[in-house]
Amino acid sequence: MADKAERIDAAALERFLLRALRAVKVRADVARDVAEALVGASLRGVDSHGVRLLPHYLAAVEHGRINPDPAFRFRRTRPAAGILDADHSFGHAAGVAAMRQAMRLAQTCGVGAVSVRNSTHCGAMAHYTLAAAEKGFIGLAFTHADSLVNSFGSTRAFLGTNPIAVAVPCAGEEPFCFDAATSLITWNKLLLLRRRGQSLPPGCGLDGRGRPTDDPVRATQLFPIGGYKGFGLGLIVDILCGVLSGMPTGRDIPSMYKTPMNQKRFLGQYYMAVDVAAFRPLPAFRRDMKRLMDRIRRAIPRKSSRASW
Amino acid sequence: MADKAERIDAAALERFLLRALRAVKVRADVARDVAEALVGASLRGVDSHGVRLLPHYLAAVEHGRINPDPAFRFRRTRPAAGILDADHSFGHAAGVAAMRQAMRLAQTCGVGAVSVRNSTHCGAMAHYTLAAAEKGFIGLAFTHADSLVNSFGSTRAFLGTNPIAVAVPCAGEEPFCFDAATSLITWNKLLLLRRRGQSLPPGCGLDGRGRPTDDPVRATQLFPIGGYKGFGLGLIVDILCGVLSGMPTGRDIPSMYKTPMNQKRFLGQYYMAVDVAAFRPLPAFRRDMKRLMDRIRRAIPRKSSRASW
Repeated sequence: MADKAERIDAAALERFLLRALRAVKVRADVARDVAEALVGASLRGVDSHGVRLLPHYLAAVEHGRINPDPAFRFRRTRPAAGILDADHSFGHAAGVAAMRQAMRLAQTCGVGAVSVRNSTHCGAMAHYTLAAAEKGFIGLAFTHADSLVNSFGSTRAFLGTNPIAVAVPCAGEEPFCFDAATSLITWNKLLLLRRRGQSLPPGCGLDGRGRPTDDPVRATQLFPIGGYKGFGLGLIVDILCGVLSGMPTGRDIPSMYKTPMNQKRFLGQYYMAVDVAAFRPLPAFRRDMKRLMDRIRRAIPRKSSRASW
Repeated sequence: MADKAERIDAAALERFLLRALRAVKVRADVARDVAEALVGASLRGVDSHGVRLLPHYLAAVEHGRINPDPAFRFRRTRPAAGILDADHSFGHAAGVAAMRQAMRLAQTCGVGAVSVRNSTHCGAMAHYTLAAAEKGFIGLAFTHADSLVNSFGSTRAFLGTNPIAVAVPCAGEEPFCFDAATSLITWNKLLLLRRRGQSLPPGCGLDGRGRPTDDPVRATQLFPIGGYKGFGLGLIVDILCGVLSGMPTGRDIPSMYKTPMNQKRFLGQYYMAVDVAAFRPLPAFRRDMKRLMDRIRRAIPRKSSRASW
């Protein structure tokens, strides 16, 4: 893009992140989960949610928003359901722990669902769903976020970018992976474009009065996908993550960037694992997935006019 | 709308539907499920998926596509998971049975998931999710459909309108209910506008060569919500409904309207129930839902320029 490219070894970058996190007293296991999640996002090309965020997270630890030495408490409330209290630590470490529990529940029950409370920003959700898909589960992950998405029919924002992520095992290649905000672009993507001095893709942003703008500096709201449909999908995510966990929702969610860095965020997340083998033999499922992926690649010519969003 | 309105008593209409279904030898319990689902959709204003479809269903029974006297076989494969073989009967009756099983699984396990195979068109998915929400569950329902949605970056359709439906219990009012195609409008909505001689909403349809059109007669494809994001969401639905059940996917799904009426459709559906009480006390959850709904109503002024889609 507009940045000068510099090639950095991923393993060396991960060690650098680990040292930086350890330097502000993040516990070793937590630091490892965070470093892996950030480098993984950058390696997948999701720079908005990758190593770029390290300085933000370090500041959040130093000022007290993020707990570097948490006591995660998991309670299995039913055979296939549980609650993880993230003790205001990194959402990344909580996400890894929650999806691990969801898989454990799904292994015996066929499906498993874990609600996370007292969490913080967890980066790109694909990290958690891919971990599930690599073990033969369909992984589903949701997080709510602070109010930044224009409410259809209003001039203001109510919901956050509230992403939906799903990954699915596939034969002979990486899992199918979908991870997308219910807004046309993510807020961290807008920040990246702002830093690069680039415009927003057309029709993605609105200013404080609800007027469309392509200027990432003037834009304070994002459009939802499909108008009221994206608003509805984002609301489902806020319900699964916020209402189901007893955390705040909508405009009550403390902002990632605008609240003081000692302000806890009280985010909720919702993780689910579906054991494919409870429905179909895994090899047949993975083979049919591969066939579907191949047919889609044949059906849709490569062209990437807007694929870089 | 453009039609002349005529007021018909819902109970009388349901009795009429029941008689019509019984006249083509649909078993009493199946006919009741279908009549309730169709009248329910019409009462909620979803005319596209309401009683309008009765002649289509009657023809499908008479010509052998829909089995009027099915042997539903449910197999619980794990404590929280099961498979329902719908024996090519009405998707409505299969949906009612599948969501009932999903709730039974969720009652003990916290969540429950049921994959339906050998099914047909099941109408508006809200019917099944609302039934779950009225009993204290978050109900989730998905169905795939035949290829009608333009693939982002292509001139052709690959996926169907593949809807996502979620309903959630709420204190002091009806459940929150989201039920939407992953295309900007549904195909049955296009057919309704075609019959009424009305135009499509702008930017919703494409002709056979992939050129945008507002003419519902020339349109043969629909745009997905949010471009590639809607394509991805629709693909997740096809995976959950088609790949997980071992049914066909994408362009292999027999068309609702273009294949002979003796052609079975081999549709799959995926139903899930989440027992709220496994995560939070239901009264507190319902109260927080009510608060969220009220705040949204206050935040977003009523205006319905495109609300009639």
